[in-house]
Amino acid sequence: MTKIAITIKTFNEQGVLEKITEKISSMNLNIVYTNLYLEKNSSFISLELENVKDIDHIIKTLKSLECTKTIEVHDSLVDIYGKRIIIIGGGAQVSQVATGAITEADRHNLRGERISVDTIPLVGEKEIADAINAITRLPRVNALVLAGSLMGGEITNAVRKIKKEHEINIISLNMAGSASKKADIIVTDPIQAGVMSVMSIADTAELNITKIKNKKF
Amino acid sequence: MTKIAITIKTFNEQGVLEKITEKISSMNLNIVYTNLYLEKNSSFISLELENVKDIDHIIKTLKSLECTKTIEVHDSLVDIYGKRIIIIGGGAQVSQVATGAITEADRHNLRGERISVDTIPLVGEKEIADAINAITRLPRVNALVLAGSLMGGEITNAVRKIKKEHEINIISLNMAGSASKKADIIVTDPIQAGVMSVMSIADTAELNITKIKNKKF
Repeated sequence: MTKIAITIKTFNEQGVLEKITEKISSMNLNIVYTNLYLEKNSSFISLELENVKDIDHIIKTLKSLECTKTIEVHDSLVDIYGKRIIIIGGGAQVSQVATGAITEADRHNLRGERISVDTIPLVGEKEIADAINAITRLPRVNALVLAGSLMGGEITNAVRKIKKEHEINIISLNMAGSASKKADIIVTDPIQAGVMSVMSIADTAELNITKIKNKKF
Repeated sequence: MTKIAITIKTFNEQGVLEKITEKISSMNLNIVYTNLYLEKNSSFISLELENVKDIDHIIKTLKSLECTKTIEVHDSLVDIYGKRIIIIGGGAQVSQVATGAITEADRHNLRGERISVDTIPLVGEKEIADAINAITRLPRVNALVLAGSLMGGEITNAVRKIKKEHEINIISLNMAGSASKKADIIVTDPIQAGVMSVMSIADTAELNITKIKNKKF
């Protein structure tokens, strides 16, 4: 099934997304990813479409809309940025986990894969719980690393909810509080936690997290 | 102008996004952000809407659609993850810049801001140029750090294009090749490069990048 990724730059008018999706629907395509945002005087609508038979026809049809300024065909975001590790916690520990994860991601990206390492340093039970809950609304997230020294309460609830509803590997540092017990694995050394988080999602890695579930390193 | 952020979980059918956007258009709302993705047997459509007068009416109307499973109202992604620094380059240097940026972001996030530090280690002129070009399709990106030792050619073209068309601060390490000359500032120490990239976009920072443009540290 052919997939394409395009970005349509349009005038900043109300109803633009509706016009675009209506046209796409009329061409019997399926939208599998979309991202819309506003910048200066334009809207940018990035789309990834499935069931594509005639790219030129699609471009021509979308260009015919009055609201369209330009259309660009390009690689999809998953082809460029790949799978994502998200690291959340205190700055010191997030940095160390990131160092391990970036170094390991480099080894895989060198061999043609694509893995990104994304981080946000935060303090506070509610703040961290909110950030963990929201990762389910980010595209392409495959693993979460809890990089702190004390996490429990609402954070534990957030972790539990993710485990239940989404396929995301959860790695935790060896910390105080109940959240780490909900992770798939606990890793004491932050560099190793970062490395293992990447290995657990890489195509070429042999670390199958289900085989080492509930282990502590 | 009231803004809300919602995520609609729907059945995985063709034309779902069109039905949703049509309903939203009929309520005279403006979509300022949308992210759609598929997981297991559902589509998740995250929307950020402006011009919101009656949240309950919106939820009720969207719930009435046959394709809708659930609707959740929550904080917007910019409220949770905030502005983004993207760091691209070789693993060793990306890690060091990330350490500086994460530590500085922590100092601002502690005071109520939200700044994320996102990274991808890559090798190759084309690969890095593609990743730089694609940052314009990611939401909430405010700064880019070129974290390598040699960047030129297509990478320089990508940097030049971003500077021309988008409001993104560009910080470069003090490296060989023509790309660093296109950056706003050049910073030799990677920790400082990370710190300065965050300071250049933080609400509470006093580092105005236009005042130090074309400087080398």
